[in-house]
Amino acid sequence: MIIIGGTATNGIDENLSKLISIPLLKVEHKIFPDGESYIRIPQHITNQEILVVQSLYPPQDKHFVELLLILETLADMKNNKITAIVPYLAYSRQDRRFKDGEAISIKTILNAIARAGADVLIVIEPHKEEELSYFGKEVKIADPMPELAKEVSKKVEKPFVLAPDRGALERAKRLAEQLNAEYSYIEKERDRDTGEVRIKNLPELRLSGKDVIIVDDIISTGGTMIQATRAAYDHGARKVISVAVHSLFLGDAYEKLINSGVKEIVTTNTIPQDLSKVTIVDVSPAIARKI
Amino acid sequence: MIIIGGTATNGIDENLSKLISIPLLKVEHKIFPDGESYIRIPQHITNQEILVVQSLYPPQDKHFVELLLILETLADMKNNKITAIVPYLAYSRQDRRFKDGEAISIKTILNAIARAGADVLIVIEPHKEEELSYFGKEVKIADPMPELAKEVSKKVEKPFVLAPDRGALERAKRLAEQLNAEYSYIEKERDRDTGEVRIKNLPELRLSGKDVIIVDDIISTGGTMIQATRAAYDHGARKVISVAVHSLFLGDAYEKLINSGVKEIVTTNTIPQDLSKVTIVDVSPAIARKI
Repeated sequence: MIIIGGTATNGIDENLSKLISIPLLKVEHKIFPDGESYIRIPQHITNQEILVVQSLYPPQDKHFVELLLILETLADMKNNKITAIVPYLAYSRQDRRFKDGEAISIKTILNAIARAGADVLIVIEPHKEEELSYFGKEVKIADPMPELAKEVSKKVEKPFVLAPDRGALERAKRLAEQLNAEYSYIEKERDRDTGEVRIKNLPELRLSGKDVIIVDDIISTGGTMIQATRAAYDHGARKVISVAVHSLFLGDAYEKLINSGVKEIVTTNTIPQDLSKVTIVDVSPAIARKI
Repeated sequence: MIIIGGTATNGIDENLSKLISIPLLKVEHKIFPDGESYIRIPQHITNQEILVVQSLYPPQDKHFVELLLILETLADMKNNKITAIVPYLAYSRQDRRFKDGEAISIKTILNAIARAGADVLIVIEPHKEEELSYFGKEVKIADPMPELAKEVSKKVEKPFVLAPDRGALERAKRLAEQLNAEYSYIEKERDRDTGEVRIKNLPELRLSGKDVIIVDDIISTGGTMIQATRAAYDHGARKVISVAVHSLFLGDAYEKLINSGVKEIVTTNTIPQDLSKVTIVDVSPAIARKI
């Protein structure tokens, strides 16, 4: 078995290699003057089980094309089983036709990865589990909640885990179980006149004196997290900690989160970042549990 | 039959629609804040023959992903025959393993286009014809030489067509035939000591008083064209005109070409540009001849 480190790994390939004691081979990579990517597997690898690490953080399209180039080259070399480890799976939020005629982007991305030669797919905390069926072959979901919980537990005294919407409840439950904490979710309603999405009154939600941990799969613009943070303070939270598996922090999302009262953010290394109030947890142990 | 205008068409979709009197439907398109592309076919199209126009000029990876999204959505709508018209085919210069372990990028690109749902591929002046076999289905090559020749003929009196290397000779021949001109090519040799590629002495090349038209498939950094321009003047050319089917003009390629003595450049609209000494020829008639 060998680990192939792609062009967008954020150190996960190296961490995984050390953790499971499997050798790591980094791809050779450059960008031509016209912007095209060049990929080379610098050793002839054949008849092997291969773990390819390539995250699809921005620029997503470039990292995706590079993943296809890596997979097809390894497939050409006649290897036994190629596992694509994609810590951050781009395009996962366009997982159905919200309007007729829309591209189901995640279907196209997963189809292409499968057809380029991946036999198995490992992702960390997908947006929705069902969407992974588009891969059409074996899929494994790596759960980084134990490592996130360990980090969060250092920062809280009376934890209460809150999902920012009903769809995120299962995720909140998983984190709460690791923390031996209560959990609940915020319910939203759409104003029939203005179309605005607001938080429902939550009379039963008693957060007084609690350290509220709001957990979501991803922070993009931070909008969902900020809305939930305000609701948590409205219901008496002592402090709010944000937990997101994947953090894009688009634009001034980080500043807005801190300004809304988020005291700390705990996330993973599926997407690179370097921000002061962000604690980063390595996803390699979660991946290792699936290998 | 219907033409679907993609996200990178440079007006070719509209020109083609007028030329062959087939209706055009533009895809709906936006970029999400995180950089992901959104594609929607704004009408339900089914049981149709479809021509999708999408060029793969920079940013190549984004335009490629958008092409896959368009094709797969049209395939999901159950259409009869989908032709992908790709005026500029990115990644076409990485068409073999120059070193062991290299990705054959064009293979991956063409495989993905075929698998996403394209039944037929039309490209303009590919880098190498053989590489198109990776598509694995019907391929048509559209030849814009008649239109390029027509434009060039307005600019020359005693034309002589020169290929900048032996590989480009067939292309030079095609242009020369349209112009009723003589043609030849420049031979290169590699210095065994320095590794530098230089132009061989060409005692038989008599360009005295001729308007030399140097023709290549693509201008990227302009290096090949500049070297050939110098050789043409060394052999007595009166003036040099550059003809390239695809023009990227990377960095200061345009300025360097003009400074090397290129008087005019004639190219096509497979890649957008807006430069003063560049005459742009529409490739729609060449495409129309293949439909």
